Amino acid sequence: MEKLTVIKVGGKVVETDSSLKLLLNDFARIEGHKILIHGGGRLATSLGERLGIESRVVDGRRITDAAMLDVAVMVYAGLVNKKVVAGLQALSINALGLTGTDMDIVRSDKRPVGDIDFGFVGDVKFVNGMLLAKLVEKGIVPVIAPLTHDGKGNLLNTNADTIAGEVAKALAVFFDTSLIFCFEKSGVLMDECDDESVIPRITKPDFGRLVKDMIVKGGMIPKLENAFAAIDAGVKEVVITKASQLGTNSGTRIA
Amino acid sequence: MEKLTVIKVGGKVVETDSSLKLLLNDFARIEGHKILIHGGGRLATSLGERLGIESRVVDGRRITDAAMLDVAVMVYAGLVNKKVVAGLQALSINALGLTGTDMDIVRSDKRPVGDIDFGFVGDVKFVNGMLLAKLVEKGIVPVIAPLTHDGKGNLLNTNADTIAGEVAKALAVFFDTSLIFCFEKSGVLMDECDDESVIPRITKPDFGRLVKDMIVKGGMIPKLENAFAAIDAGVKEVVITKASQLGTNSGTRIA
Repeated sequence: MEKLTVIKVGGKVVETDSSLKLLLNDFARIEGHKILIHGGGRLATSLGERLGIESRVVDGRRITDAAMLDVAVMVYAGLVNKKVVAGLQALSINALGLTGTDMDIVRSDKRPVGDIDFGFVGDVKFVNGMLLAKLVEKGIVPVIAPLTHDGKGNLLNTNADTIAGEVAKALAVFFDTSLIFCFEKSGVLMDECDDESVIPRITKPDFGRLVKDMIVKGGMIPKLENAFAAIDAGVKEVVITKASQLGTNSGTRIA
Repeated sequence: MEKLTVIKVGGKVVETDSSLKLLLNDFARIEGHKILIHGGGRLATSLGERLGIESRVVDGRRITDAAMLDVAVMVYAGLVNKKVVAGLQALSINALGLTGTDMDIVRSDKRPVGDIDFGFVGDVKFVNGMLLAKLVEKGIVPVIAPLTHDGKGNLLNTNADTIAGEVAKALAVFFDTSLIFCFEKSGVLMDECDDESVIPRITKPDFGRLVKDMIVKGGMIPKLENAFAAIDAGVKEVVITKASQLGTNSGTRIA
């Protein structure tokens, strides 16, 4: 099988033109087929603030009311996605900006209202891996913004890590697929204050132990759970690393 | 040759959810291959105002500085484009939202600075008709926002009428192509205050006479010039009509 790299970037990397430019240069150097999934960092929050729309966050998750959904669509599908696509085109990479809505590539269900009403938030139900595979085989590089739809006309704000995981799983049937999560730190750290303390490899038994010892905690737990789910579903390799280390062997490998 | 309809909508139609919904229902009923090109109406101006960004307009054309370009990208490529795509998907139309940047489908040159510096505004240089034809033949309905790029990483605000004309011309090689411009009125009117006074057909000699007699004036002149240029380049038919009349025989036919 041919090789495919699915890369998720988010947070600070996409927030400034200078860090975005560095990222795109690193991304351009990755060989073989590739797909980029991006978040929007704090750009949506800050646009919301400028428009007087309050960002409500419960348990680290943004509540997406109708006004905030519009902001997310403008920032993720508009500003960030098209800047990335234009930047990649300038590097001779034939990028195509997408949301899950476009060609129905990622369908989701609006999250049911339980203790919390998350609003217009989607849980991924289906990824059209066949269609993405065909695009990739034509030399197109999909750039996916973290928005999906329910097929009934509603756009839904959707976690970019989840989309990356589901896309990688759907494409593992067609390609020898690696999934790379880029974030602010160099990998999963033994000591969160020491960016040199990267754990090079984490297996499932390691994971249980690291959680019990409180070394892995907070937002890193769902990230690693996602990673193991991807491996179980046929993804060859999951790497957690820093954007500036793309293309090197640094970071934490999940296996 | 198979039939293709290229439809440009703009102005008030995309500004409210209710008029957009009516438009999408009308668009869905058009048979055969189709492409939608949309403007953003006053949504960009109003978002700009909410953000304290002044909209400068010279000779009816918006000056696009960097801040206003970001607003245009957010509104056109984000909010409007994705609402249209989600709405069409709900009607079982396999829409794909695009800007000219995506897959490099519409390349433009930044308009040279003359008496006026229009800022980040693009004049269309090249349309990848072959690629659009392939998408259309696969049953995909491209939905194009009025943004292009220069291949050097710059997004450029681009007149939606011009994009529609250039797309129709590029596709006239592959399909029996009709180009429909939807706007607020029922067609080109003999009396601009009487929406019933539609001129059913305008030829080139008619056009010269109508301009001389001041019946056709203002923004309608470049619209009709675009229409004749499209006909000269092989487009079979150009229609100027009201969105609510899509699919009927109403409006003004250019030949």
